[in-house]
Amino acid sequence: MTSRLDEYRTYRSQMNERIFQIDHRGVKRFFNLDTAAYQDGALDPKTKELLGLVASAVLRCNDCIDYHLIQCVDAGWDDAELYDALNVALIVGGSIVIPHLRHAVETIDLLRKEANDGS
Amino acid sequence: MTSRLDEYRTYRSQMNERIFQIDHRGVKRFFNLDTAAYQDGALDPKTKELLGLVASAVLRCNDCIDYHLIQCVDAGWDDAELYDALNVALIVGGSIVIPHLRHAVETIDLLRKEANDGS
Amino acid sequence: MTSRLDEYRTYRSQMNERIFQIDHRGVKRFFNLDTAAYQDGALDPKTKELLGLVASAVLRCNDCIDYHLIQCVDAGWDDAELYDALNVALIVGGSIVIPHLRHAVETIDLLRKEANDGS
Amino acid sequence: MTSRLDEYRTYRSQMNERIFQIDHRGVKRFFNLDTAAYQDGALDPKTKELLGLVASAVLRCNDCIDYHLIQCVDAGWDDAELYDALNVALIVGGSIVIPHLRHAVETIDLLRKEANDGS
Amino acid sequence: MTSRLDEYRTYRSQMNERIFQIDHRGVKRFFNLDTAAYQDGALDPKTKELLGLVASAVLRCNDCIDYHLIQCVDAGWDDAELYDALNVALIVGGSIVIPHLRHAVETIDLLRKEANDGS
Amino acid sequence: MTSRLDEYRTYRSQMNERIFQIDHRGVKRFFNLDTAAYQDGALDPKTKELLGLVASAVLRCNDCIDYHLIQCVDAGWDDAELYDALNVALIVGGSIVIPHLRHAVETIDLLRKEANDGS
Repeated sequence: MTSRLDEYRTYRSQMNERIFQIDHRGVKRFFNLDTAAYQDGALDPKTKELLGLVASAVLRCNDCIDYHLIQCVDAGWDDAELYDALNVALIVGGSIVIPHLRHAVETIDLLRKEANDGS
Repeated sequence: MTSRLDEYRTYRSQMNERIFQIDHRGVKRFFNLDTAAYQDGALDPKTKELLGLVASAVLRCNDCIDYHLIQCVDAGWDDAELYDALNVALIVGGSIVIPHLRHAVETIDLLRKEANDGS
Repeated sequence: MTSRLDEYRTYRSQMNERIFQIDHRGVKRFFNLDTAAYQDGALDPKTKELLGLVASAVLRCNDCIDYHLIQCVDAGWDDAELYDALNVALIVGGSIVIPHLRHAVETIDLLRKEANDGS
Repeated sequence: MTSRLDEYRTYRSQMNERIFQIDHRGVKRFFNLDTAAYQDGALDPKTKELLGLVASAVLRCNDCIDYHLIQCVDAGWDDAELYDALNVALIVGGSIVIPHLRHAVETIDLLRKEANDGS
Repeated sequence: MTSRLDEYRTYRSQMNERIFQIDHRGVKRFFNLDTAAYQDGALDPKTKELLGLVASAVLRCNDCIDYHLIQCVDAGWDDAELYDALNVALIVGGSIVIPHLRHAVETIDLLRKEANDGS
Repeated sequence: MTSRLDEYRTYRSQMNERIFQIDHRGVKRFFNLDTAAYQDGALDPKTKELLGLVASAVLRCNDCIDYHLIQCVDAGWDDAELYDALNVALIVGGSIVIPHLRHAVETIDLLRKEANDGS
């Protein structure tokens, strides 16, 4: 059975490929710049992914939340830390963030399940 | 001469006092919860203030940016780290964040100047 | 057949249960504060739910719109009053609110149908 | 001495006059529709102004907050009711609304002072 | 097989019909004003649809993006021009716009496919 | 006497210089990408500036509105065309855009006055 995370990954990767095929110089440079923003700098990538998660949560974008949660779990943040970051997003962004908190908590559970199933 | 940071601090503190005097139970509990969100938990306060800064920047609120920059400088983030966090906000939020980036950079400079003048 | 309202209610209740199980002190206090905000105070709960509906509509959150519509119908607002409130949201928020107006009108119809079917 | 409310009123009225002078059919019709949205309908104007206030607060527009507070005070909402409505906005919109809550509370105080000075 | 564009068109047209049946004077006037905003004026309809597209993209509303893309393709904008407009939206709105860029690119492909299949 | 447009230009240019002096690679590349987005491509620069204006208006950023109005006037858009574009922004974004419409109309008048005074 395909999980919603797999569907998201497939769609994201198909459409990114399509966008690169279009070959718009500005769009491609933006995608590169976006990738670069989370690489090692004055801050380490792990911290930056958490910043990306909270930014995505207060701006209320489920796809962006999923993307950064995948990266955050990869980077080694544990559940308690992710919940604590999401709590900051909840306080800053208010109850309008709650549906996205539900989505984020579900995504974390799905990611942990994937890791367990794959082990 | 009063800097814009001093004006902000004075106004913020006067109005917070006024709001506490009003004594609305829900509002007061929200203010307490807001304070608590940045205290030690699974994440340390220093990390949480940086999350608060990025959330404020992508939501484009200068007063919130100033508040979290004051806290971030207090918590020990250096300029390069703050710029790197603001770069994440810029990429996530786009060019509409630029006027707030200008404001944030000016605030960082003002805070460092205050620290130097006070030493 | 399960309506989209039933799906929403089930998902919302499952994920809220999961969130309470996580037991993050800040998140739990926020949920309590959120509930308290719509209880009797200087304004009555019925008025507050209408405020919550309009806030949800201008912030363009379908789940929040559904939640507050369920509460508004429970509180006794009739269709004409709900449409008049949604019209305020439409004027304040502009045509970008229209897809959420469609969703809201459909939700109202579904809620009235549920009430009729259940009678 | 001119208060910031007087400055707002003067600027608003000058610029509205300028906008009507421009005589763009769409803009003029929108302004009329905006006025009509708060007039008597299934909901009374007093309730609608409170909806407008909360919508303005969660969308974080100080000028809109001031406009609707002027109308709300005119319509007879007392301070406790206005604070209770602003508390809903604070919960829905989160801490990013706090600077606008400060502004709103100050505006309410200015409006009451005007009423007292004028009596 | 029904494409997601057909589903959108059907839902949109059903719910618009339902909204007109409700016959709220303010809502109906807003819908008329919305239609009028894209008609010939100082700017031609083709330019205005592109403005509507970019506004929808930075405000991150997929239904609105689809609506304006349908209009833009009808008005004669070619793919390269639409991508160039979406690039402006991406720069202004940041990476949070990327999921909507994916959606928009897919919609453009679906619209071109419809045109080819129908020829 | 210094107009608010001159103050904006001075502050913008000072802070941009300060930001370039900081020399954050990501931020600098973003600024370059932002400039490039409005240069000749599938769409001409004149059309793109109008897109930038409408995006800035619906996102409700006065500094961004001023920046794009300066560019739009330079690019040769006349007042009627600018008003027609702002009308699209007003319809898409709703009455919450009105304070920014006032600001934009004032900026257009200031820009035309500058052009006349300088002739």
